[in-house]
Amino acid sequence: MFLDKLNWRYATKKMDPSKAVPEDKVAQIVEAVRMAPTSSGVQPFELFVIRNTEVRAAIRGVARDQAQITEGSHLLVFAAWDNYTAERIDAVVTLNEAARGPSELLTGYYEGLKAMLLPRPAEVNAAHAAHQAYIALGFALAAAAELGVDSTPMEGFDADQVDEILGLKAKGLRSKVILPLGYRQEDADWLLPMAKVRKSAETLVTEIN
Amino acid sequence: MFLDKLNWRYATKKMDPSKAVPEDKVAQIVEAVRMAPTSSGVQPFELFVIRNTEVRAAIRGVARDQAQITEGSHLLVFAAWDNYTAERIDAVVTLNEAARGPSELLTGYYEGLKAMLLPRPAEVNAAHAAHQAYIALGFALAAAAELGVDSTPMEGFDADQVDEILGLKAKGLRSKVILPLGYRQEDADWLLPMAKVRKSAETLVTEIN
Repeated sequence: MFLDKLNWRYATKKMDPSKAVPEDKVAQIVEAVRMAPTSSGVQPFELFVIRNTEVRAAIRGVARDQAQITEGSHLLVFAAWDNYTAERIDAVVTLNEAARGPSELLTGYYEGLKAMLLPRPAEVNAAHAAHQAYIALGFALAAAAELGVDSTPMEGFDADQVDEILGLKAKGLRSKVILPLGYRQEDADWLLPMAKVRKSAETLVTEIN
Repeated sequence: MFLDKLNWRYATKKMDPSKAVPEDKVAQIVEAVRMAPTSSGVQPFELFVIRNTEVRAAIRGVARDQAQITEGSHLLVFAAWDNYTAERIDAVVTLNEAARGPSELLTGYYEGLKAMLLPRPAEVNAAHAAHQAYIALGFALAAAAELGVDSTPMEGFDADQVDEILGLKAKGLRSKVILPLGYRQEDADWLLPMAKVRKSAETLVTEIN
């Protein structure tokens, strides 16, 4: 059951380097990212799926030496757009027209969107794009849990350095959050035996009836 | 299957006002939000579950008159912390100690976190808190899909006004994204028959092998 899977998952601290996540499961997690909804369907981020051990070692080196990055078998890097541009939005329009046929309503909608987004400061747009990447991160986390794959979301890395390692700046991208995938090493993870800690519904949730 | 559910969901434009989402399903969606992982386990947001029709009508009035807000049966409002404070982090420490017992490692970790977060500008912390709320939004969207419940994430609202309606400012909260829950009215939703549009994996994903 879905909630049992969400309860099963935890921020795995020790991954078993001898166990690789099968590629069909990685593909399903990536597909969940691709299906994640985003504001106006723009999908303002890119996903990097890193198997290469040297690249992962380099990222580990600028990510507080967190071992899961190399002890897992795959590393996902969510990189958000650094800004919205006319070209980027127009590509979304082209994609929509290809799937649904041309429509004035469609063109008009995205012209309105450009009129709203393009004059805004780059940092406002970058923050908005990052939000969308975090929805996709949520989908990746949920999909991994559903498939019994462990994952550990991490913000504790030097984004400038990761951008440098992956050549993101030239692509107008900025690394936001990374997600090693692997399998927990049950006898060696100090966090596994500990109780999951979450605020009570009473603390977190207000009902307005 | 999980991906089929993610494919089934879409940004429902027309919800059937005669069909209410059963409370046990709403409870499961809320529980998914509660289980969503957040940076250092801080859960820096609150969730408002609004059934009240007048409150939802008021929010619809400041949200471009989007009908799903009142034609659905429930409205979720994700409200992120406007800043990190010592009190807020200390409450997380207390919660952890209650669940796992006191530990110097734990206290030290969160003292380090406070030393990092508290000197930062409020807007940097608010942005960081908002990111965590978007992970939880992703969990809510995935949980709703899993349960066959329709949902429509919305950023197109006047956040100041929603904050005013819900009294969020006094609580140090800021509305970030809202999510009506309901059921699609299949014969009346212009978007339903249209093809889902997503970028190809080739466009969205880079593999580094």
